[in-house]
Amino acid sequence: MRIAMSAAEVGDDVLDRDPTMRRLEDEVAGSLGTAAALWVPSGSMGNLIAMMIHLRRGDRFLAPRGAHVLESELGSAAWLAGGMPQPLEWRVGPGRVSADDVRAAATTESLYFALETRLLCLENTHNMAGGTVTPPDEHARLVAAAREAGMRVHLDGARLWNAAVALGVPPAALAVGVDSVQVCLSKGLGAPVGSVVAGSRSFVAEARRVRKMLGGGVRQGGVLAATGLLALARIDELATDHANAARLAAGLVELGWEVAAPETNIVIATVPDTAAALESLTRVGVLAWPLPGGVRFVTHRDVPAHDIDEVLRRISVARSPAA
Amino acid sequence: MRIAMSAAEVGDDVLDRDPTMRRLEDEVAGSLGTAAALWVPSGSMGNLIAMMIHLRRGDRFLAPRGAHVLESELGSAAWLAGGMPQPLEWRVGPGRVSADDVRAAATTESLYFALETRLLCLENTHNMAGGTVTPPDEHARLVAAAREAGMRVHLDGARLWNAAVALGVPPAALAVGVDSVQVCLSKGLGAPVGSVVAGSRSFVAEARRVRKMLGGGVRQGGVLAATGLLALARIDELATDHANAARLAAGLVELGWEVAAPETNIVIATVPDTAAALESLTRVGVLAWPLPGGVRFVTHRDVPAHDIDEVLRRISVARSPAA
Amino acid sequence: MRIAMSAAEVGDDVLDRDPTMRRLEDEVAGSLGTAAALWVPSGSMGNLIAMMIHLRRGDRFLAPRGAHVLESELGSAAWLAGGMPQPLEWRVGPGRVSADDVRAAATTESLYFALETRLLCLENTHNMAGGTVTPPDEHARLVAAAREAGMRVHLDGARLWNAAVALGVPPAALAVGVDSVQVCLSKGLGAPVGSVVAGSRSFVAEARRVRKMLGGGVRQGGVLAATGLLALARIDELATDHANAARLAAGLVELGWEVAAPETNIVIATVPDTAAALESLTRVGVLAWPLPGGVRFVTHRDVPAHDIDEVLRRISVARSPAA
Amino acid sequence: MRIAMSAAEVGDDVLDRDPTMRRLEDEVAGSLGTAAALWVPSGSMGNLIAMMIHLRRGDRFLAPRGAHVLESELGSAAWLAGGMPQPLEWRVGPGRVSADDVRAAATTESLYFALETRLLCLENTHNMAGGTVTPPDEHARLVAAAREAGMRVHLDGARLWNAAVALGVPPAALAVGVDSVQVCLSKGLGAPVGSVVAGSRSFVAEARRVRKMLGGGVRQGGVLAATGLLALARIDELATDHANAARLAAGLVELGWEVAAPETNIVIATVPDTAAALESLTRVGVLAWPLPGGVRFVTHRDVPAHDIDEVLRRISVARSPAA
Repeated sequence: MRIAMSAAEVGDDVLDRDPTMRRLEDEVAGSLGTAAALWVPSGSMGNLIAMMIHLRRGDRFLAPRGAHVLESELGSAAWLAGGMPQPLEWRVGPGRVSADDVRAAATTESLYFALETRLLCLENTHNMAGGTVTPPDEHARLVAAAREAGMRVHLDGARLWNAAVALGVPPAALAVGVDSVQVCLSKGLGAPVGSVVAGSRSFVAEARRVRKMLGGGVRQGGVLAATGLLALARIDELATDHANAARLAAGLVELGWEVAAPETNIVIATVPDTAAALESLTRVGVLAWPLPGGVRFVTHRDVPAHDIDEVLRRISVARSPAA
Repeated sequence: MRIAMSAAEVGDDVLDRDPTMRRLEDEVAGSLGTAAALWVPSGSMGNLIAMMIHLRRGDRFLAPRGAHVLESELGSAAWLAGGMPQPLEWRVGPGRVSADDVRAAATTESLYFALETRLLCLENTHNMAGGTVTPPDEHARLVAAAREAGMRVHLDGARLWNAAVALGVPPAALAVGVDSVQVCLSKGLGAPVGSVVAGSRSFVAEARRVRKMLGGGVRQGGVLAATGLLALARIDELATDHANAARLAAGLVELGWEVAAPETNIVIATVPDTAAALESLTRVGVLAWPLPGGVRFVTHRDVPAHDIDEVLRRISVARSPAA
Repeated sequence: MRIAMSAAEVGDDVLDRDPTMRRLEDEVAGSLGTAAALWVPSGSMGNLIAMMIHLRRGDRFLAPRGAHVLESELGSAAWLAGGMPQPLEWRVGPGRVSADDVRAAATTESLYFALETRLLCLENTHNMAGGTVTPPDEHARLVAAAREAGMRVHLDGARLWNAAVALGVPPAALAVGVDSVQVCLSKGLGAPVGSVVAGSRSFVAEARRVRKMLGGGVRQGGVLAATGLLALARIDELATDHANAARLAAGLVELGWEVAAPETNIVIATVPDTAAALESLTRVGVLAWPLPGGVRFVTHRDVPAHDIDEVLRRISVARSPAA
Repeated sequence: MRIAMSAAEVGDDVLDRDPTMRRLEDEVAGSLGTAAALWVPSGSMGNLIAMMIHLRRGDRFLAPRGAHVLESELGSAAWLAGGMPQPLEWRVGPGRVSADDVRAAATTESLYFALETRLLCLENTHNMAGGTVTPPDEHARLVAAAREAGMRVHLDGARLWNAAVALGVPPAALAVGVDSVQVCLSKGLGAPVGSVVAGSRSFVAEARRVRKMLGGGVRQGGVLAATGLLALARIDELATDHANAARLAAGLVELGWEVAAPETNIVIATVPDTAAALESLTRVGVLAWPLPGGVRFVTHRDVPAHDIDEVLRRISVARSPAA
């Protein structure tokens, strides 16, 4: 990836587009089944741009409880995109919401000056729910429910590749019918910097303008786009991460931990005391992330199967954090 | 009230304050136990000004599910005050939230770049829950929980006078410890236009500036303030509205309606088909307001007891909307 | 006016419109030649609503140097309506701008990602320039220049009645071709509270929604609208204010002051030390307003001709502020 | 630079900072004489973050006419940072403003509810004025005038290195007394992506949070920071660009063009028809940038002296665009 970076053909992406950027954007658009795509420095900016385009001041938007746009973007959905969030409960499964709830949240015509429910934000896989997957038929029902109610749909697909690999379907099958979708090139795919937001040509033209407004345009972005192109070629390798997550979860259960069976590359363990658990893990050199009432482990390409075994060995010799 | 309006002493309230405005603001501040107060054209503007002062971009704020700031102010809490709302469930009773839930929503120190939970918005009485009352001890526990978690507290007291009368306590007892409180002079009290937002001297100085920003400053406001002063003198008369609401609810129950016992001047009936119910009521000249799954009746000074009886008579001869 | 106020027929203007409000709005729309109109609590809110509707985030707007929307609305044009102001110089006369400058400020197509110049804000009469009048042909040329460049036009007509009376033309002649216009019922016309913003039916429908967002909707607004209806009947009487302003200016010149000949009801005197001049005036009971390098006198219906003479007498005995 | 990029030590800059990023930020802070610094994806984002931190809604800010923050950031200063711009005329020289004008624009205490003038934005060198340089003593006088008037100061130093090299002073001498300064690593220095915004420790802590809000945080940013470190080592080489700009300007003058003597690496030629001039230049393979009434040439490390001669040769054979 670093070799690709140093050999990339570049241009000025702010002025007239960088050729490697253009190749990356075309490839992602092709993969997602959209007409166009735009590189952005982060997934947060990709989501933000989409919400800024879809929402008008005061519009209501829906998102699954715990969604990144609700919890992890410092409220920019409200103060910057001007939207009033309404979380949807996980009725169908962890991180998965129901089409009935989407319909129930539609704008009520009869009430004067009601908030208009304008946007449904999906997240697949759902990070905080443990990398859980929404399959294509369920996705399609949610999109249909939103459409019938006059809503637009944005998909936070930062981990969409994981969902596609876990289900054995092409990524485009999980983005059917959306107005915009954001996918991440770092995380599991390992590019150092960058995400892509995709949609129609007019959406992407406006997104390019909003990206400039936010200061997200870069000059010789080709050096980053080159790593993104390599990342895309690695999507199938995510299956290894998923196998390793299953290996980790099984090992933790054997050690007496309370762990949900992972669907992709995220393992969430329930612990009585998150701070104590993290401290105990850190002591043996295992990095995890705190959640309310739990800890989150993520597998990725730099943690091969034998490292998973080593992690389990270290946890087994530590005083169990779950104890 | 109209005589008072036409006899009011006035000045230019934008320039150097109108004398009748000043008297009204002083009287409300005295009644609420705050250092100062400011007239505003509407309760929505009073709530908005408070949220604009308390919140910084992206801060989270808490409010009971169905609160006016969440549902009935066209999302200005988000796009204008910059806040991310988090609804609190009605754990203690309809419209009433728990101090534990306030504590649980506090900013989590350990997480990097988390949303900061900055403000608790209370609403007493809670309109959409049916004019339900939060008593002083429960109010104090909620304020204490917010304070311990570093939050500010705003009270939407558009119907605070009703709560005070229902409980037989002074209004100030229901505003103890808050950073700001909004009370309404129209609604039950019958002034044609106006609300008041109250707090510390520095809060009100800033509120005066924000009111000017929003275009809410008026010139010879004394003509309106004069009606507000009369309205304040009528607070005790709200007890009649409460008695009439009880009379209406009892009558509806006798007619087979499903109605919660009202705590103040709002009667909410559960109906199978809101639109049909409203149509049926309108046909016999009874005005009500649609809610999801119900209709709302409000009693006020222009609907005396014998009119309540007439309302019940008309409903009894109509094909029952609850049928 | 106070009698009218106390006799007004009222309704709930937030819910389903107040009948007296409706009459006022219809009458103003008729007078301005627009399809519809909306009462607002202040001229600032009227201007703000128009700018919020016309501008998209980051659009540039033009206004004469010293315009109320630039100097006296606390920056809401920028932070709330999202516009980048560009002041236009007074090329044609005090407060009067040129069509060439409007054309020159149009969006430049050839530059990538340029600011879009979206709106021309006019002000007639121009307050800070001394109540100066833009005549209909000049107004028409400015509107035409804006239209050709793809801009919308808003007219801050807080003092439009004065311009119409000074020119002897109907108010509608000064609002030809604009997308929106704001007129004030207080100031010279003497209503205690209120302005009106007017435009097409769709503009006013959106303005009603934005007014609600800002907290500018009122309940029984008829009591205020009744004073507005009386105010409209007084427009011709503004000629007396203009005569009194001329009388004041002439007298000041005789006393050795440097004063421009007033076009309407505003007299601006140039003074070497504004603070000293104001203090000296205040000592003899004459109220004026500070400007950079000057003071502003305003004549209105409560200052008859003999009071003007008294003002001049008092100033003559005081140590001259212009000395 | 590409080798450095591919060999960079990296971490996760969003989580706990990337080591190469940290080295870059420390080095820039040292060079500018500030306590801390933060990498950002673009100069626009650096300026925007500073304005968001310095301005409160509705504050006025000052900037030289034609400044990047006024013309080239799509109005984000207004709609996102909430500021009302006031351009300062070029009184001292092209792109250079006077301390007297800064003082004259200070908040007027005596007026009620005036806009507060909160921030002075400087730009050194000033791009649109032709890369003109503000020397240290003039900079210090401007900062002092702003300070006395209670303003903060931000320096858009996207080309600060050029100013320092042209003057033969250390960059820190041109950033004395400012609250924040933005410098660019691309442009003349040739890094592919990135700028740095610098200031006090508390400023940078807040800037880090705002960068996250805008979606400007990156993961393994070290690959970009490594190029930034190399860029910093090249500052002295900018003198060659300046010599080449002088060579180009002299040659153009010989060919009959109207060209101001360049102070750094920007050459602005006045032409009767910008579009025709650009077309003519493009035909012979010379790239320039359109300005109102002119074209802008920029010299940089990829255009050595013999290429300048080639540019002049090609222009001489073309039908002169200035003709």
